[in-house]
Amino acid sequence: MNYHIIRYVSGWVIALEGMFMMFPAVIALIYAEFSDMGIFLGCAAAYALVGFLLIRRRPKKQGFFAKEGFVMVALSWLVMSVLGALPFVFSGAIPSFVDALFETVSGFTTTGASILTDVEAMPHGMLLWRSFTHWIGGMGVLVFMMAVLPMAGGHGMYLMQAESTGPSVSKLVPSIRKTAVFLYAVYFVMTVIQFVLLLTVGEMPAFDAICSAMGTAGTGGFGVKADSFAGYTPAAQIITTVFMVLFGINFNAYFLLLRRRFKEAFKMTEVRWYLAIYFGVTALVIWNILATLGGDVGETVRHAFFQTASVMTTTGFSTVDFANPAVWPQASMMLLLFLMFVGACAGSTGGGIKVSRLLLYVKYAAGGFSRMLHPRRIKVLKFDGKAVSADTFRALHVFLFCYVAIFIVSTVVLAFDGFDLTTNATATLATLNNIGPGLGQVGPLGSFAVYSDVSKLMMCFNMLAGRLEIFPIVLLMIPATWKK
Amino acid sequence: MNYHIIRYVSGWVIALEGMFMMFPAVIALIYAEFSDMGIFLGCAAAYALVGFLLIRRRPKKQGFFAKEGFVMVALSWLVMSVLGALPFVFSGAIPSFVDALFETVSGFTTTGASILTDVEAMPHGMLLWRSFTHWIGGMGVLVFMMAVLPMAGGHGMYLMQAESTGPSVSKLVPSIRKTAVFLYAVYFVMTVIQFVLLLTVGEMPAFDAICSAMGTAGTGGFGVKADSFAGYTPAAQIITTVFMVLFGINFNAYFLLLRRRFKEAFKMTEVRWYLAIYFGVTALVIWNILATLGGDVGETVRHAFFQTASVMTTTGFSTVDFANPAVWPQASMMLLLFLMFVGACAGSTGGGIKVSRLLLYVKYAAGGFSRMLHPRRIKVLKFDGKAVSADTFRALHVFLFCYVAIFIVSTVVLAFDGFDLTTNATATLATLNNIGPGLGQVGPLGSFAVYSDVSKLMMCFNMLAGRLEIFPIVLLMIPATWKK
Repeated sequence: MNYHIIRYVSGWVIALEGMFMMFPAVIALIYAEFSDMGIFLGCAAAYALVGFLLIRRRPKKQGFFAKEGFVMVALSWLVMSVLGALPFVFSGAIPSFVDALFETVSGFTTTGASILTDVEAMPHGMLLWRSFTHWIGGMGVLVFMMAVLPMAGGHGMYLMQAESTGPSVSKLVPSIRKTAVFLYAVYFVMTVIQFVLLLTVGEMPAFDAICSAMGTAGTGGFGVKADSFAGYTPAAQIITTVFMVLFGINFNAYFLLLRRRFKEAFKMTEVRWYLAIYFGVTALVIWNILATLGGDVGETVRHAFFQTASVMTTTGFSTVDFANPAVWPQASMMLLLFLMFVGACAGSTGGGIKVSRLLLYVKYAAGGFSRMLHPRRIKVLKFDGKAVSADTFRALHVFLFCYVAIFIVSTVVLAFDGFDLTTNATATLATLNNIGPGLGQVGPLGSFAVYSDVSKLMMCFNMLAGRLEIFPIVLLMIPATWKK
Repeated sequence: MNYHIIRYVSGWVIALEGMFMMFPAVIALIYAEFSDMGIFLGCAAAYALVGFLLIRRRPKKQGFFAKEGFVMVALSWLVMSVLGALPFVFSGAIPSFVDALFETVSGFTTTGASILTDVEAMPHGMLLWRSFTHWIGGMGVLVFMMAVLPMAGGHGMYLMQAESTGPSVSKLVPSIRKTAVFLYAVYFVMTVIQFVLLLTVGEMPAFDAICSAMGTAGTGGFGVKADSFAGYTPAAQIITTVFMVLFGINFNAYFLLLRRRFKEAFKMTEVRWYLAIYFGVTALVIWNILATLGGDVGETVRHAFFQTASVMTTTGFSTVDFANPAVWPQASMMLLLFLMFVGACAGSTGGGIKVSRLLLYVKYAAGGFSRMLHPRRIKVLKFDGKAVSADTFRALHVFLFCYVAIFIVSTVVLAFDGFDLTTNATATLATLNNIGPGLGQVGPLGSFAVYSDVSKLMMCFNMLAGRLEIFPIVLLMIPATWKK
C-alpha cells in the first residue's frame, strides 16, 4: 500500500474542499449572514492549511494500483463528508453531528435525502453549501482534482475508475487530465445554461435558480422550498425536467456530439434504452393516473414527465407528493420504484444500478440460457460492438450480490426503529440509489429526521456505497486491503 | 427436441396424478362426501386413461439432454397443476378456474398461499387433496416417477437436476433410481413419524394430523383451520417446529447419517449455516419481541421458534398473526422477511434462494474483492472441499438476475390492483419463495382472494418459477428452446 500517495491525494481533497467553501462564504456575505460567513472562511482557512501540510512533501513513488485507487476514493469521500458537515454544526443550523453528516453525505453523494424538517428556515449560505455539495459530488471531487493537478504516469485512471459511475470506465481522450477537463467543462456549461433559463424563462429568483441548477446537474435533489418544485412556474418545471434527463445521459454522448461523431452518439445502446425506458414508463404512468384519478391531461403529462425524470435520474425533486395514493396511484408508485432500481446512464451524474449494467445483466442471462440449451456453443458477449471482458462480468456479479445484500441488511436495521416496511425499504432504496425521497414516511413531503442515529449512519453507508458503486467503500472496510 | 420422450414422460405424470387421486377419494368416502368421491374417481379414471394412451408406445430413442429435461419438468408441472385444479372446479368447492389453479399451483409448489376465505367450510376430501399436493410437490413428481419407473441410460439425471432444489444436484448413489427411492423412503418415514407424534403427543384429530404432517413434509403450509396452528396444543406446535426444521435440511445429510458417515454429515457447511441462521435470527426475534412488547417468555420463545422455522423453511404455518405489528414488532417482521429471501437448504423440500446458494454468492463476492486487491492471484473457489465449477457459478448469476427481475416485475404488475407496497412486495416474495403468507393484506390471517385474475396468474408463474428454480419455466417460454 502506497501510504504516501494516499496522504498526498487526501491533502489535495481537503485543500480543494477549503477552496470550495469560499462560494457559500460569498453568498453568506451577500445575505448579510456574517457569522455564517466567518464559519465558512474559518473552515476554508483551516482546511487549506491542513491540506497544504499534507501536500507539501510530494511522494517519491507516484505510482499506485487499483487497490490504492479504491482506498483513496473511499477515504477522500469520508473525509470530505466529515469536514463538509462541520459548518452546519458550528453555525447551529444542524446542531447534531450525525444529522449534519447525514445531510452532507446526502449532498456529496447527490442523494438529496434530508433530515431537515423546515428547509425554508435555513440561512442562505448553508443552503447554498448544501446544494453546492451536489454539484461537487455529481462529477466527483477526484475527477476535479485530476482536471487541475497533473499526475504522473496515468495512474489517475484508477481514481477515475473508482469514482466514476458504471460497469466499465474508459478515457475519452488518451490523456486523463484532458478527459477530466472535458467532463467538467461540459458539466459547468450545462449547469450555467440551466441557471440562465431558470432565471429568465422560468421566472425563478436567482438564489433558487443557482441551487436548483446545481441540484439538477449533480442529480442531487436538495431544494430550497418545503414543497420542492411544486411552487415554481410550469416553465421552470419543464426546463428542469429536460435538464434532469440530460444530466442522466452518459457524458460520452456529449463528447461524441462535440466531436461531430453524430452517428456514434445516436447509436449508443445505453442512451437509447435509457430514453426508451424513460418515455415508456412515463406513458404508463400517465395512462395509470388518468385511468385511476382522471384530472387535467396537460398537468398530468407535465407532472408525470417531471416525476419519472426525477426518480430515474435519481435527482429527487418533486412537483407532487408521489407518496400519497390519492395523488399518485399505487401502480404509478411501483413504476417509480422500478425506475429507482434502474437509475440513469453510466458515466452520468445519476445513481441507481445504471441502464448499461442492467443491459449487461440481460445479455449475460440470455447468454446463460443459450448455454443451457446448447452447452457446447460458445458465444462472445458484446456491448456496443465490443466484447465484454470476464473482469467486467465478474465485477457485475459481485456488484449485484452486494447490492441485494446491502438492501436487505439496511431494511432490517432500519426496521428496529419501528416504522413500516414501505418506509424502511424505500428509505434504503432512496439512499442506496442516491435518489432522495422514498415512499411512506420518507416521501417527498416527509423527512429522514424520524430515524435514529444508528439508522442514519446505516443510510450514510448506503449513500456512499451507492455513489461509489459499492467496491471502494467495501474494500476500505475489509482487513485484507490493509494486509501487507 | 425428442418429442416422443416428452410425450412418454407426460403420460406417466398424468397417470400418476390419476393414481394419487385415489387418496382423497377414500377420504371423501370416509366422510360420506359421495359426490366429491365421484369426482375424484372420475378424474382418476380419466387421467389414468389419457396417461395410458400416451405411455402405450414407448419412444424408440430413450436418450435426451438437459434441454429436454428442463422442458419435461416445466411441462409436467403445468399439466399437473391444471389437472389437479379440476376437482375443485367440478365440485364447486372453488368455482373459478383461475382460483382453483392458483390453489393447486400453490399446493404442488409447496407455497401454501390460499385464495380461500373460509377454509373450514371446505369438504374433507378437497382439503386432503389440497394438502396431498404439498406432499407430492415437496419431493417432486418426477423424482417419484423415477423411483417407480426404470429409465434407460441415466438420462433421468437431467430430470432430477431440473426438479430438485439447489445450485448443483448430485446423485447419492450411482443409480438414479436408487437415489429416488432413498429420498422418497426417508420422506415417507419422516412424514409418518410426524403424523403419529401429532396424533398421540400433540392430541390432534387424525384428519388434521394427516394434513398437517403432509403440509410440514412438503414445507407447504396449507392448514385446515382458519387460524392455522394457533388453536393446536403447544405440544403439536413444538413437534411441528422440529419437523419443519428437519424437512428444511439437505436430504444428503440423512443419507450420510443412515450410512453412519456421521463426521461428514455434521461437517456439511450448508446445514451448519442453516441452523446457525435459524437460531441466530430466532434469538434476535425473541429479544426484539420481549424488548418491544414484553409478555410471557415461554410463549414468546415457542412462537418465535415456530414462526422463524415456518418462514425460513418456507412452510407458512403460523401460531400468531406476524403481519400485525401489535403482536409481532416491525423489526421481527423484517427478520422474517430476511428469512424469506434465505430459504431452506438445497436438496430439501423448502424454497427460497437456499442457504448453499447464498454461501456460494458470499464466496464468489469475497473472491471478487480479493481479485480486485490482487489482480494476478488466481484462487479456486471451493465448497465442502470441492472446487465449484464455472457452470455452477454461471447458473448462480443468471438465477440471481432472474430472481430480482421477477421480483420487480411481479411487484409492479400486482400494484395495478391498487394495494400498498407491503402487500404487493410480500405477496411476490411469498409466492416466489414458496412460503405462503406475506405481510399486509396477505398476512397469515389474510387471503390472496383480494387480487385480480391477472395478478393471480402472475403469482402462479412466481410459484412455479420459485419451486423449479426459474430455469425450466423460463426455458419453456423462450422460442429458442423450440427452434430446430
